[in-house]
Amino acid sequence: ARTGIPEAVLAEGKSPDQLARILAEARARRTVLFLTRLPPEIATGFPDLDYDPISRTGIFGIPTRRPETDGKIAVVCAGSSDLPVAAEARRALQVFGTDAPLYADVGVAGLWRLMEVADELRQFRVLIAVAGMEGALFSVLAGLVPGLVIAVPSPVGYGVSAGGQVALTAALASCAPGVVTTNIGNGFGAAAAAWKVIGAG
Amino acid sequence: ARTGIPEAVLAEGKSPDQLARILAEARARRTVLFLTRLPPEIATGFPDLDYDPISRTGIFGIPTRRPETDGKIAVVCAGSSDLPVAAEARRALQVFGTDAPLYADVGVAGLWRLMEVADELRQFRVLIAVAGMEGALFSVLAGLVPGLVIAVPSPVGYGVSAGGQVALTAALASCAPGVVTTNIGNGFGAAAAAWKVIGAG
Amino acid sequence: ARTGIPEAVLAEGKSPDQLARILAEARARRTVLFLTRLPPEIATGFPDLDYDPISRTGIFGIPTRRPETDGKIAVVCAGSSDLPVAAEARRALQVFGTDAPLYADVGVAGLWRLMEVADELRQFRVLIAVAGMEGALFSVLAGLVPGLVIAVPSPVGYGVSAGGQVALTAALASCAPGVVTTNIGNGFGAAAAAWKVIGAG
Amino acid sequence: ARTGIPEAVLAEGKSPDQLARILAEARARRTVLFLTRLPPEIATGFPDLDYDPISRTGIFGIPTRRPETDGKIAVVCAGSSDLPVAAEARRALQVFGTDAPLYADVGVAGLWRLMEVADELRQFRVLIAVAGMEGALFSVLAGLVPGLVIAVPSPVGYGVSAGGQVALTAALASCAPGVVTTNIGNGFGAAAAAWKVIGAG
Amino acid sequence: ARTGIPEAVLAEGKSPDQLARILAEARARRTVLFLTRLPPEIATGFPDLDYDPISRTGIFGIPTRRPETDGKIAVVCAGSSDLPVAAEARRALQVFGTDAPLYADVGVAGLWRLMEVADELRQFRVLIAVAGMEGALFSVLAGLVPGLVIAVPSPVGYGVSAGGQVALTAALASCAPGVVTTNIGNGFGAAAAAWKVIGAG
Amino acid sequence: ARTGIPEAVLAEGKSPDQLARILAEARARRTVLFLTRLPPEIATGFPDLDYDPISRTGIFGIPTRRPETDGKIAVVCAGSSDLPVAAEARRALQVFGTDAPLYADVGVAGLWRLMEVADELRQFRVLIAVAGMEGALFSVLAGLVPGLVIAVPSPVGYGVSAGGQVALTAALASCAPGVVTTNIGNGFGAAAAAWKVIGAG
Amino acid sequence: ARTGIPEAVLAEGKSPDQLARILAEARARRTVLFLTRLPPEIATGFPDLDYDPISRTGIFGIPTRRPETDGKIAVVCAGSSDLPVAAEARRALQVFGTDAPLYADVGVAGLWRLMEVADELRQFRVLIAVAGMEGALFSVLAGLVPGLVIAVPSPVGYGVSAGGQVALTAALASCAPGVVTTNIGNGFGAAAAAWKVIGAG
Amino acid sequence: ARTGIPEAVLAEGKSPDQLARILAEARARRTVLFLTRLPPEIATGFPDLDYDPISRTGIFGIPTRRPETDGKIAVVCAGSSDLPVAAEARRALQVFGTDAPLYADVGVAGLWRLMEVADELRQFRVLIAVAGMEGALFSVLAGLVPGLVIAVPSPVGYGVSAGGQVALTAALASCAPGVVTTNIGNGFGAAAAAWKVIGAG
Ligand SMILES: Nc1ncnc2c1ncn2[C@@H]1O[C@H](COP(=O)(O)O)[C@@H](O)[C@H]1O
Ligand SMILES: Nc1ncnc2c1ncn2[C@@H]1O[C@H](COP(=O)(O)O)[C@@H](O)[C@H]1O
Ligand SMILES: Nc1ncnc2c1ncn2[C@@H]1O[C@H](COP(=O)(O)O)[C@@H](O)[C@H]1O
Ligand SMILES: Nc1ncnc2c1ncn2[C@@H]1O[C@H](COP(=O)(O)O)[C@@H](O)[C@H]1O
Ligand SMILES: [Mg+2]
Ligand SMILES: [Mg+2]
Ligand SMILES: [Mg+2]
Ligand SMILES: [Mg+2]
Ligand SMILES: [Mg+2]
Ligand SMILES: [Mg+2]
Ligand SMILES: [Mg+2]
Ligand SMILES: [Mg+2]
Repeated sequence: ARTGIPEAVLAEGKSPDQLARILAEARARRTVLFLTRLPPEIATGFPDLDYDPISRTGIFGIPTRRPETDGKIAVVCAGSSDLPVAAEARRALQVFGTDAPLYADVGVAGLWRLMEVADELRQFRVLIAVAGMEGALFSVLAGLVPGLVIAVPSPVGYGVSAGGQVALTAALASCAPGVVTTNIGNGFGAAAAAWKVIGAG
Repeated sequence: ARTGIPEAVLAEGKSPDQLARILAEARARRTVLFLTRLPPEIATGFPDLDYDPISRTGIFGIPTRRPETDGKIAVVCAGSSDLPVAAEARRALQVFGTDAPLYADVGVAGLWRLMEVADELRQFRVLIAVAGMEGALFSVLAGLVPGLVIAVPSPVGYGVSAGGQVALTAALASCAPGVVTTNIGNGFGAAAAAWKVIGAG
Repeated sequence: ARTGIPEAVLAEGKSPDQLARILAEARARRTVLFLTRLPPEIATGFPDLDYDPISRTGIFGIPTRRPETDGKIAVVCAGSSDLPVAAEARRALQVFGTDAPLYADVGVAGLWRLMEVADELRQFRVLIAVAGMEGALFSVLAGLVPGLVIAVPSPVGYGVSAGGQVALTAALASCAPGVVTTNIGNGFGAAAAAWKVIGAG
Repeated sequence: ARTGIPEAVLAEGKSPDQLARILAEARARRTVLFLTRLPPEIATGFPDLDYDPISRTGIFGIPTRRPETDGKIAVVCAGSSDLPVAAEARRALQVFGTDAPLYADVGVAGLWRLMEVADELRQFRVLIAVAGMEGALFSVLAGLVPGLVIAVPSPVGYGVSAGGQVALTAALASCAPGVVTTNIGNGFGAAAAAWKVIGAG
Repeated sequence: ARTGIPEAVLAEGKSPDQLARILAEARARRTVLFLTRLPPEIATGFPDLDYDPISRTGIFGIPTRRPETDGKIAVVCAGSSDLPVAAEARRALQVFGTDAPLYADVGVAGLWRLMEVADELRQFRVLIAVAGMEGALFSVLAGLVPGLVIAVPSPVGYGVSAGGQVALTAALASCAPGVVTTNIGNGFGAAAAAWKVIGAG
Repeated sequence: ARTGIPEAVLAEGKSPDQLARILAEARARRTVLFLTRLPPEIATGFPDLDYDPISRTGIFGIPTRRPETDGKIAVVCAGSSDLPVAAEARRALQVFGTDAPLYADVGVAGLWRLMEVADELRQFRVLIAVAGMEGALFSVLAGLVPGLVIAVPSPVGYGVSAGGQVALTAALASCAPGVVTTNIGNGFGAAAAAWKVIGAG
Repeated sequence: ARTGIPEAVLAEGKSPDQLARILAEARARRTVLFLTRLPPEIATGFPDLDYDPISRTGIFGIPTRRPETDGKIAVVCAGSSDLPVAAEARRALQVFGTDAPLYADVGVAGLWRLMEVADELRQFRVLIAVAGMEGALFSVLAGLVPGLVIAVPSPVGYGVSAGGQVALTAALASCAPGVVTTNIGNGFGAAAAAWKVIGAG
Repeated sequence: ARTGIPEAVLAEGKSPDQLARILAEARARRTVLFLTRLPPEIATGFPDLDYDPISRTGIFGIPTRRPETDGKIAVVCAGSSDLPVAAEARRALQVFGTDAPLYADVGVAGLWRLMEVADELRQFRVLIAVAGMEGALFSVLAGLVPGLVIAVPSPVGYGVSAGGQVALTAALASCAPGVVTTNIGNGFGAAAAAWKVIGAG
């Protein structure tokens, strides 16, 4: 929390015992925790958690601020396969204190859907863009809007794009200035960066 | 030529001696040869060759047909770095018998330039698209036109995109149906495929 | 469908809820959908779908044209392990409007089987070739026939060829002109490209 | 420039002829251009360019604003090998309109040097961090300051870290929230993102 | 045992039958065995084994020396996900003859926690450091202490860091002198090396 | 020579001084040496060497047996780019004691050329096959002949096949039984293996 | 069988239906089949098969020759984890007509065990060597014996050696002349090559 | 020097100007510097440096201790190609204060040469082993001696082993306990670790 962001815990790979100890300690310290990649079958053992099965995130403790809709950050994604990652970013932003609108189904294969909302998207200071497959959305979006584009590659695809690797390298190699990238599937990291950008961290 | 395509010779890595022997044999057989990746310093030793330094290709012998502009194939590329590969494709098409128009500078970072020519591009049966960096052009183009898009990744980029690897995987992972791919920099292969598509092979 | 190809949905990784919503929307729009990579255990929840367990594809809605056998496209594969991918391509072609014949068991280890059907294969304008392991079929086939070869690497193999990676790179590196490639296992993409080639898209 | 950032040209791989044409066109359009990865032996042919051999960048045309020192962006790097990339970022920021201070020689092998300037670094809204080798600087810095850390992996290293690959993956995998990444060596991209963050784009 | 280290058996991938034969033979030879990567469901079939489910190690036979706390070796790790690997190293050290203290939760994202114990850590001749994700701990630690740092990359992470690959390359590329590395997850190997360092092998 | 093969020296990367010392020592021991990957500009400094610029090999000392043509081993390659590697294998066989015939220009893109010599090739006990690009020759050949096929991937190609990587994996993944492989460009190793096969080692 | 080796079928990834059809056809043709990578739960459905659960191979039909022990081929492996691959090679050799002895537990970590049998191993014309982890066995063995070493990398290991990749590249890069390699886990391919070497194919 | 090791400077990639500034500063601080990867053509510009062209290292300033031969550390390598890396390690040890003997030409292809010196090698507490190609030396050595083996992969090889990658992974995957690894070519790092092991750091 020293850097203005509530603490996150990568729950994947931790045993229920380890998680119980971490939560107990957070309760003692009266800290808010944000748990990511928490499997539903483990989450059921922690009824205190505010758990969301789409994003597989859990919120522990009551965030001090109620989220507001301040219109500075939007989350954009290409299709329904990308929703879990988009949801992780939006849940994290809620914990930080803002409700970010979601623009889903704006992939580049149907460019006109993206064009229809382009004017709206130009209003945001930060756009968290989630895309898998070939990740063309990142470059196209960054060519259309003045805000910062934080690319979150999504582990959606098969063959060469399995695991999100192509979308990641597409984000890094983007020929449009103003795109920055996080690790594959790191919705929380993108939210934390966006929160710092709008000066609220 | 059994498959309807004049013979190509990959000149890169062949010694002047080896090339001289190949040309002598072609002269004896009265065959047309298309030499690719021929370095200029070696080409100067073969004054009979119709050599083009941009595409680094040489044409040996007189193609039987004069190229026509039949309006079925276009070559599209994102920027001036992609011109050598685009030129290899266009030179090969000339040897086969057609003059394909070039649409340069239509990369996705400036989407409006691509939009301005979209109606024209929709007239072609095949579009040979050349792009490096993150290769978003392939998906965007395939979402805009009804023709077949033959993606030729271009070895333009640095860091993760050095050598054309990101553009290649972006072409393969494209979420727009109707995109097929060739090896990085293989303008000749794309031209051969396009020629077969229009039934002239 | 703006590009002449009915819409495809990559079902893998989507929840039954997400798929139900997508189908409901397609019913409302009276669109035909082609679902790929749909696991059988999920398909059973959608009795309206015309589901095929070999290709793991589902057809939703009644395609407007009845498939015809027009003799322009053939599907060729090396062995029974490649049948699922070959079947995805053939099912997609049926949705588009054509019944493409299948030439199975013509791998290069038994070259004479391929030679026996070579004259037949020379009649087709497009050959969708499916092969895993080392993917030698792509080059051999393209050296034998005048039609366009669309290579679909198949995720069959172990060790270095696990996941189809060797067959993919073999297709890209093919020294026979006129081979183009799709992503590993992308039978739908190959079918869409073939459909565009024969000018029916 | 539609997105608020003057145009950049990747000069590497372009011939002097191509560059001359690009500059002539910019002069006609009265645009400012920022050229990156411009080799010194080619730069000498363009005396109009404001060329800097360390960053290998050229500025063409007179930027409209004079750079100010507004104290919102700093550039941080680990050692003298990282200076070319750091300089590309700073030159780009000057073109945009700001003079960003440089903190060099603060690598993690000598943690106390970083600690000594930690309080200063905490004043900036954005820190462009340049590091090669194992890229530990990104995580350590992000754990110390509240600002956004834009990691620019530097192509410094040998063996496994040759070309900047380890630093890149270290930035992406950083366990400190609020780190975002650009392609290896992309000082310009980091500057463009930073400029958007401070709302001046 | 010729090199002073009791024998280790990689249990993963061995059938219960194979393990039974190995143990029977060890009993006959009156040898102590250290089994690594032994799944709990297989361990239950061997009640003679001293099995530890966290490290997934089994000790067979009674080590001749009782472990002592000699203060020469410490095990350091970043978080609870790294505990299994840290535990494998500590269990191996116990078999060899020493109890090494564990410093957990000293990752670089919270640098002050590492700083708080830095003076203690400076007392050890060898530090076995376990870290996943981006592995920044290795460089930071080696910059703080005079002892040898044996890095054990931990298979903790997702996206680019899945499987421990980023932490491994970070250890190898470390710019701090005096870091050596083992394979990902090889706690036993690190313990064997540490034991040789303190001259007890 | 304990294993029946005269000693080989990898000259690449060795300084003239180091080579001079190695040759002096061989002269003292009256040993025959086979030098591989010896650059021509260094070879000129050693007039005693029997140097061949195509294969870049040097023979030092007089092999005891005169090479015979025993008709058991043949060298087969796809095109003129593969000749350097094929020549390294043939030179090594000469040192061992046999003259192996060369079948060049039998790549799979022109399958009929391979078919024309198939009956001849069926007479050999071992076929050293050299191929670059996609390496389809290995599988096709092994499907046609009863002898052992030793595949030597050749570093010929560009894009994905640059450096010989695709040909190597194609050889390893070959679906034709009886193909074994050496490292890329290792003509010497293939010759040594062939020599052992015919029982002459 | 044209090349002297009974037919092999890669059973992995084939459905019981597909296998049933293949066996029915083999019965009709009165052919012997060798099935590899056949999961035990599928094998139980084919009681006619001579199935071996260690090697996961099935023999269908009665091989014409009874295996003999001719002392020309041996199988060597490092440890019990390599036994499945070694067993695949030995089972294939039995089908071909020979019983090859097995030398297990001769890994390089205990060099003396290998030394003890070195004189015996020097009697064989071909040694099929199976090793995982770092694959040092291949080079050490080839330095000790005059016979041909056919390396079969085994998919045993973790971290960098997971899947057999390190052992494969170690075999390819071996500095001992006379080592050739097959794909990871390809015991059948090694057996087929060995059979050809001893002139019995 | 806080960790007991004189400072090293990676000279590769630094300009003469940058190096001059670093040396001037070291002179002012009266520090000893150890420069690695310093090209000879740059070294000639610094006559004060004690430069060694084999290891490409420069020593600046007079080390306080005269090197002693204390018999605790030895450097072992496989062949003359590995000498530059072995020399970097030995030069670094000299700066630290010890003369380590060199055992060259003990590669595993000639195992008896290694066996001849095995008894001598068993006297050392630390063995710095340098090997390229397939790196089998690391495992074989660690199986023969009780001391710690610090593996330094050497960038010697071609094809799959180009750049030292195979030797590196072989070291990491070694099945012999007590092997630790440094980055490819990092003789300095190995020396620093060895120095810490013998407690002299
Ligand atoms: N740029 C190119 N890309 C792909 N294939 C090529 C190219 N140039 C030549 N080829 C083909 O490569 C094969 C081998 O060429 P060669 O080594 O000249 O016999 C021939 O079949 C050529 O058609
Ligand atoms: N097997 C497939 N291969 C390639 N693209 C596909 C496949 N199935 C669906 N698609 C496309 O993938 C894109 C993303 O799909 P969706 O996640 O369903 O929106 C759509 O444009 C589909 O047309
Ligand atoms: N072209 C080659 N390919 C593979 N191994 C080789 C080659 N040339 C030499 N060798 C072997 O590489 C090992 C190391 O060579 P050297 O560095 O000369 O001692 C020796 O065992 C040589 O037999
Ligand atoms: N050959 C080398 N291998 C590994 N690290 C090195 C080497 N040479 C110098 N270093 C370290 O690399 C870091 C960065 O060096 P510099 O760029 O000189 O500041 C310093 O901490 C040096 O100690
Ligand atoms: Mg997407
Ligand atoms: Mg581009
Ligand atoms: Mg196949
Ligand atoms: Mg650095
Ligand atoms: Mg960690
Ligand atoms: Mg070839
Ligand atoms: Mg092994
Ligand atoms: Mg070596």
